[in-house]
Amino acid sequence: MKKHNFYAGPSILSQQVINNTIDAIRDFAGTGLSVLEISHRSKEFTAVIEEAKQLFIELLDIPEGYDVLFLGGGASTQFCMVPYNLLKTKAAYVDSGTWANKAIKEAKLFGEVDVVASSKADNYVWYPKDFTVPTDVDYLHLTTNNTIFGTELRRDLDVPVRMVADMSSDIFSRPVDVSKYDLIYGGAQKNLAPAGVNFVIVKKDALGKVDRAIPTMLNYQTHVDKGSMFNTPPVLPIYTALETLRWYKELGGVKRLKELDEEKAACLYDAIDNSRMFVGTTHVEDRSIMNVCFVMKPEYKELEKDFVEFATARGIMGIKGHRSVGGFRASLYNALPLESVKFLVQAMHDFENK
Amino acid sequence: MKKHNFYAGPSILSQQVINNTIDAIRDFAGTGLSVLEISHRSKEFTAVIEEAKQLFIELLDIPEGYDVLFLGGGASTQFCMVPYNLLKTKAAYVDSGTWANKAIKEAKLFGEVDVVASSKADNYVWYPKDFTVPTDVDYLHLTTNNTIFGTELRRDLDVPVRMVADMSSDIFSRPVDVSKYDLIYGGAQKNLAPAGVNFVIVKKDALGKVDRAIPTMLNYQTHVDKGSMFNTPPVLPIYTALETLRWYKELGGVKRLKELDEEKAACLYDAIDNSRMFVGTTHVEDRSIMNVCFVMKPEYKELEKDFVEFATARGIMGIKGHRSVGGFRASLYNALPLESVKFLVQAMHDFENK
Repeated sequence: MKKHNFYAGPSILSQQVINNTIDAIRDFAGTGLSVLEISHRSKEFTAVIEEAKQLFIELLDIPEGYDVLFLGGGASTQFCMVPYNLLKTKAAYVDSGTWANKAIKEAKLFGEVDVVASSKADNYVWYPKDFTVPTDVDYLHLTTNNTIFGTELRRDLDVPVRMVADMSSDIFSRPVDVSKYDLIYGGAQKNLAPAGVNFVIVKKDALGKVDRAIPTMLNYQTHVDKGSMFNTPPVLPIYTALETLRWYKELGGVKRLKELDEEKAACLYDAIDNSRMFVGTTHVEDRSIMNVCFVMKPEYKELEKDFVEFATARGIMGIKGHRSVGGFRASLYNALPLESVKFLVQAMHDFENK
Repeated sequence: MKKHNFYAGPSILSQQVINNTIDAIRDFAGTGLSVLEISHRSKEFTAVIEEAKQLFIELLDIPEGYDVLFLGGGASTQFCMVPYNLLKTKAAYVDSGTWANKAIKEAKLFGEVDVVASSKADNYVWYPKDFTVPTDVDYLHLTTNNTIFGTELRRDLDVPVRMVADMSSDIFSRPVDVSKYDLIYGGAQKNLAPAGVNFVIVKKDALGKVDRAIPTMLNYQTHVDKGSMFNTPPVLPIYTALETLRWYKELGGVKRLKELDEEKAACLYDAIDNSRMFVGTTHVEDRSIMNVCFVMKPEYKELEKDFVEFATARGIMGIKGHRSVGGFRASLYNALPLESVKFLVQAMHDFENK
C-alpha cells in the first residue's frame, strides 16, 4: 500500500532525492566508496558542500556579504548560538509558539530579552502582529512558521532593527528578502534533508560584535572561516540536502514552490472550511501553508481517534496532532505531492459520509 | 576496481551495515517509509535508539548508574560540553595530540586547566606517561587514541581522580573499564557510523555539580532526561550505528574486535619494521592499533608522493598522511578487513621492489 507522509519532521523527501541518495551510498561520485564512508576533505565531498551553498545563494537570492553554513545539531542548538554570537545587551523576541518560547529561554542566559508580542494566552492560535520593536535591541527574533500550532508569518517584516529568523519549517516555501536579516537558521529535516544538519544564512559583518568568549564550535565565525569544515560535518544529511536543492532548481525555484505549496494548502483548507465535521484551529489570516492544524467540531470530538485510525488504514501517516493542540496536523512540505493532499481530503469526505 | 578504504574518518563501514542502511532507506521497519523521512518519535525509531543504547551497555559492559546518549554535532562540540557540565574550578588534561590540544583550549574558557603532561615538543610521537595527577581537580581528561599522530593509550589508567575520555577513534577496539570514567565521548565517524552523531557515556551522578547556567542543548542532563530525544536526533547516523553495533555483537563483541584489530595492526607494523624504505613515526610502545603513521626513510623521502599515487592506482584510498606528520597514515578501523591490510603490505613490497 502506498504511504502518504504527513509527518511534521523528519518528513517526506522526494523519491528522486531518496533514489539519488541511495545511489551515492552505493558509489559516491564514481569514487567506488559510499558517501557514508568518504572523507569530508575529499575533493568529491568539498564539491558537494560548495554546490549546496551556491544553490542556497541562487534559490534564495542571497546578497553579497552573507555566508551559508551547514552545521551539526538541530535548530535547538541555534537557540543558544544566536544570542551567544549576537546578543550584546538586549534582544527582542516574538513569542509565536513552542519553539519561539524555547528560543526565548536560551536568550535569557545571555542578556535582556524583550518579548515584544505573544499569543501564548490564546494557545498560539494567531500570529502576533502590530507590535512595536524598540530601536535599542540588537535584533528581533522571529519564528516564521509555527510547526506545532500551524500559524505562519509568511512575509518579511519592516522593522527598525535587524532580524533573526528560525525558518526551520518554511524555508524554500516562498521568496525571502534575506537583506533584512542578520541571520536565518533552521533544522533541515522539514524542507531540505534528513535530520542531522542545520542551515545558517549569516550576514558576515553581524559577527564579532559581542565581548563574551564563545566556545569554538558555537562561534559562527569558526564555521565562516572554515567553510563549514572546521570539524567533520554531517556528510550524508548535507549530501541529501544538495539533492533536494538540485530538485528545487529543476522545479523552477522558490516562486514555483510557493505556487505549488499554496495550491496544496488551499486544497486542504477548503476541505476543512466546507466540512460539517472538521474545523481549523487557527485564525484564518495566519494559517500556515506548511502545517495544517484542525480538529473535529465539538459535537464529533469523540471521533478524532477513529479518524486517525481510518486514515492510517488507508496509508495516511503522521496526521495525529501535537499534544499541545490535539486533533490533526497535516504537514504539506515541498516534497509532498498534491495527490497526497487530495487523497487526505477524499478520506475526510469518506469518513464524514460513513 | 575494488577500493580499500584507509580514510581516518569518516571511514570504512562494513558492507553488511551499508546494505542494511540502504534497505532501511527504501523501507524502514516495514513502515513503507524511508528512515530518511520517518518521525523520530515513531515507535519504530524509538526502538532503534533504545536497542542502540542497550547494545552499547552490553558490548562495553557499562555498569549501572550510567546513561548512553546519541547527540548531534561532533566530538569538537563535546570539547566545550565537557567543561560546561563538569569543570567546577580546575581540571587536568593530558596533551597527547591535536585533538587533546583543542579540548584544552575549550576547557580554559570554563576554569583552570592543569596540563599534567604533554608530548607536543616532540610533535606528539609518544603518548605521555608517568605523570602525576593532582587530587584537587574535577577530572582528568584523556584522548585515548591520537588519530593524527598514531599513538594510543590502550589501557585504563589508575589515577586518584575521575576520568573523562575522548574515545572517538578507538571505541570498540578493546574492553574498557567504564567504571573509572565519569564520561566517555566520541564522534561516531570512525568505528561506528557515518558522520553526524556523537556517543556520550555519562555517569549520571557526575552531573549537576557546577554552578553555571548551561544552555539547554549543551546540558547533558537535558539529554539524559529525554533519552536523547529532547530535540530531533540525527536519525540516519543513529540507525547506521545500530547496524554496526548489531554486527559487532555477531562478530563476538569487543574482545574479538580487539584480537582482529591487533592482528591487522601487527601485519602492517611488521611490514614497516622489516622494510628498507618505510619507517614508523611514533615510539613503538605507544603505537596506535587504529591509525598507523609511517614515512619514507630520509634517503627515499622524495618517493613519498610516488607511493601515494602507486597505491591509489591500485585502489588503496586515504593513505596520505596528515599534514602535521607527512608521509602516510593507514587507518585500520574495525570495518577494515585484514585482506585490505595485506593488500597494502603487498603494495609496499611491490613498490620497494620496483
